[in-house]
Amino acid sequence: MKYSFAERVNLMQSSAIREILKVTEQPEMISFAGGLPAPELFPLEEMREAFNHVLSSDASVLQYSTTEGYLPLREYIQQRMQDKGISTTPGNILITNGSQQALDLLAKLLINPGDVVLVEKPSYLGALQVFRSYQPQFMDIPTDDEGIQVAALEQAIKEHKPKFIYLTPTFKNPTGVTLSSERRRAVAKIVQENEVLLIEDDPYGELRFYGEPVPPIKSYDETGWVVYLSTFSKTIAPGLRLGWVVADEELMKKLVLAKQGTDLHTGTLVQRAAYYYLTNYNVSDHVQRICLEYGRRRDVMLKEMAECFPSSVSCTKPQGGMFLWVTLPEHLDSVKLLTRAIEEKVAYVPGAPFYSKDACFNTLRLNYSNSTPDKIKSGIRRLAKIF
Amino acid sequence: MKYSFAERVNLMQSSAIREILKVTEQPEMISFAGGLPAPELFPLEEMREAFNHVLSSDASVLQYSTTEGYLPLREYIQQRMQDKGISTTPGNILITNGSQQALDLLAKLLINPGDVVLVEKPSYLGALQVFRSYQPQFMDIPTDDEGIQVAALEQAIKEHKPKFIYLTPTFKNPTGVTLSSERRRAVAKIVQENEVLLIEDDPYGELRFYGEPVPPIKSYDETGWVVYLSTFSKTIAPGLRLGWVVADEELMKKLVLAKQGTDLHTGTLVQRAAYYYLTNYNVSDHVQRICLEYGRRRDVMLKEMAECFPSSVSCTKPQGGMFLWVTLPEHLDSVKLLTRAIEEKVAYVPGAPFYSKDACFNTLRLNYSNSTPDKIKSGIRRLAKIF
Repeated sequence: MKYSFAERVNLMQSSAIREILKVTEQPEMISFAGGLPAPELFPLEEMREAFNHVLSSDASVLQYSTTEGYLPLREYIQQRMQDKGISTTPGNILITNGSQQALDLLAKLLINPGDVVLVEKPSYLGALQVFRSYQPQFMDIPTDDEGIQVAALEQAIKEHKPKFIYLTPTFKNPTGVTLSSERRRAVAKIVQENEVLLIEDDPYGELRFYGEPVPPIKSYDETGWVVYLSTFSKTIAPGLRLGWVVADEELMKKLVLAKQGTDLHTGTLVQRAAYYYLTNYNVSDHVQRICLEYGRRRDVMLKEMAECFPSSVSCTKPQGGMFLWVTLPEHLDSVKLLTRAIEEKVAYVPGAPFYSKDACFNTLRLNYSNSTPDKIKSGIRRLAKIF
Repeated sequence: MKYSFAERVNLMQSSAIREILKVTEQPEMISFAGGLPAPELFPLEEMREAFNHVLSSDASVLQYSTTEGYLPLREYIQQRMQDKGISTTPGNILITNGSQQALDLLAKLLINPGDVVLVEKPSYLGALQVFRSYQPQFMDIPTDDEGIQVAALEQAIKEHKPKFIYLTPTFKNPTGVTLSSERRRAVAKIVQENEVLLIEDDPYGELRFYGEPVPPIKSYDETGWVVYLSTFSKTIAPGLRLGWVVADEELMKKLVLAKQGTDLHTGTLVQRAAYYYLTNYNVSDHVQRICLEYGRRRDVMLKEMAECFPSSVSCTKPQGGMFLWVTLPEHLDSVKLLTRAIEEKVAYVPGAPFYSKDACFNTLRLNYSNSTPDKIKSGIRRLAKIF
């Protein structure tokens, strides 16, 4: 080691699994590994028109702009939040480079080395990765078919006085599971009573193909102890890198300061074009088309698994989102099996990196949004050979 | 304070000056305060064509992409670096959201609380701001008309064993001063001999209107102790948020990990469109047009100052960039005078925030790139009334 890095760098390890998965770009490979939306559903032509329009106006679309983000876009988001039962103001919304950046900013503002952070077991690996770089101590909260277990959460809060709790309550990455309405209400109550911050990460909430919508936990929050994150990555396109945070004034002020230091502001042009797209096209029709197709792909995957997989293999049955979660018999290790899978030209992400510790090695995540039904069928058959 | 923030947040204070400067958007105001390029010189029509072109191709322009950045764009940058005497490979280049993000990533990777960071006196305030959030100890190196003083730098390195040195050697923000060729060579030698990392921030290097180009310090580096940052913000447009870092393999690996956690990657679409623009239009002609106009504006500002300001006021005479630096008689305080200036409908940035400590209150920064010659004349006359 030539350079003398900061201590936090020791915790920022490159993932061995990521290295294995680099081969997924090979032509014959069917990959259920990535978390990619279906590019054939991107509003390509509409975005072309949107960029064309805003670049035909004044040069300010290419200029520096405010750290908070483009005000009309924040006003649009406020309305969208209102529709979900979240009352807020444009001043309480910050535009970020995808919600990943919001996770980084929040971690930077909140975590002192050694602070306890409560996470779901399992949890989104990108969140674990960025939190880890601020040296927290993770505590896992067990989950079941209805999401995080409320009693365990409350006990952990009282016992560990965490800096914050991180949840992805809707169509969670990696399991696809959704926290039930009653539990949402209970969680909101617990965090308010205990005055502990909850980060509600909701990238997938709009991708519901079955069942009834459930309100965000933030909609039950009256005291500012819930911070809400979302993104246009799954409803418009991830390549724009546009997300947002909804937070109380005190936290928002600090988020703006942190964002300013980090990269001044999110791209002016993409914000302007996204706003034009959102207000000049039928976005809800577009999202419905995505839901219809993802629902079809999810059904194909589940049906094929039911037909080909041994009965000892179980999986979640998500009502939305992009992923499902497979549990193999306990003696099987999905990390070891990945090498076999790659030989068979099919890829997935082993469950291990989604655990902050004590990984269940017999689990794995499958993505269905990024493969056509035909590929899903072939891929599942290839996996069946291995399991 | 409701939330319990991390300790580093105590150092992330909102700037009082920034609050005062919020009024600069008033219609009658002439602002020399911002660091904005001239929007009338943005290649608006060319960017419209570029976005139109890439959005007429395949949907991958809207998809997630690699953390490192779009490979053809990195290859283009490699060539551009080569033209400046910097030998590198695309694998040693990371695309960032402007060079501000590169400063954040480097600070995150390098600074443990209490580590010494050497900065110029004065230095770019955005760098001081983001470094501060990782709790270093700043040590100032004095500068003169040829930039940083080499003997003082060497002594400070030996005495304080800094984590890194941060320099903006060309047309520095805030002073406009350029480090001489001889000193560049000497600085490169010193950092290599002492095995200490130097961050060379070069956002303005291409905006030279007078004098001979000087090679980047990085061009003298044979051992990887110089990290080089630059950006398209001043040559194409800041609203795209596109910058880059050139670093040795060991550091690059960590930069990629940090960037991945921070925001996954820089926008796919803007990278693709920028690449199309850079390779399908005459960029050097475009940059020459910018230089011609900024040179003219700088001349107008200097001429007007020579005519209107008292002889006790001195200023730098930069050969490029966007700023000049004014020194008032010692008893004058530019922070206090700013309120007077705002009343006269003219704004600048006081020198104080550009100092890590021991500020010289009789200094201030003027931007000439963002005002027309007529406005520059009026603005300087308004300032003359006050000084």
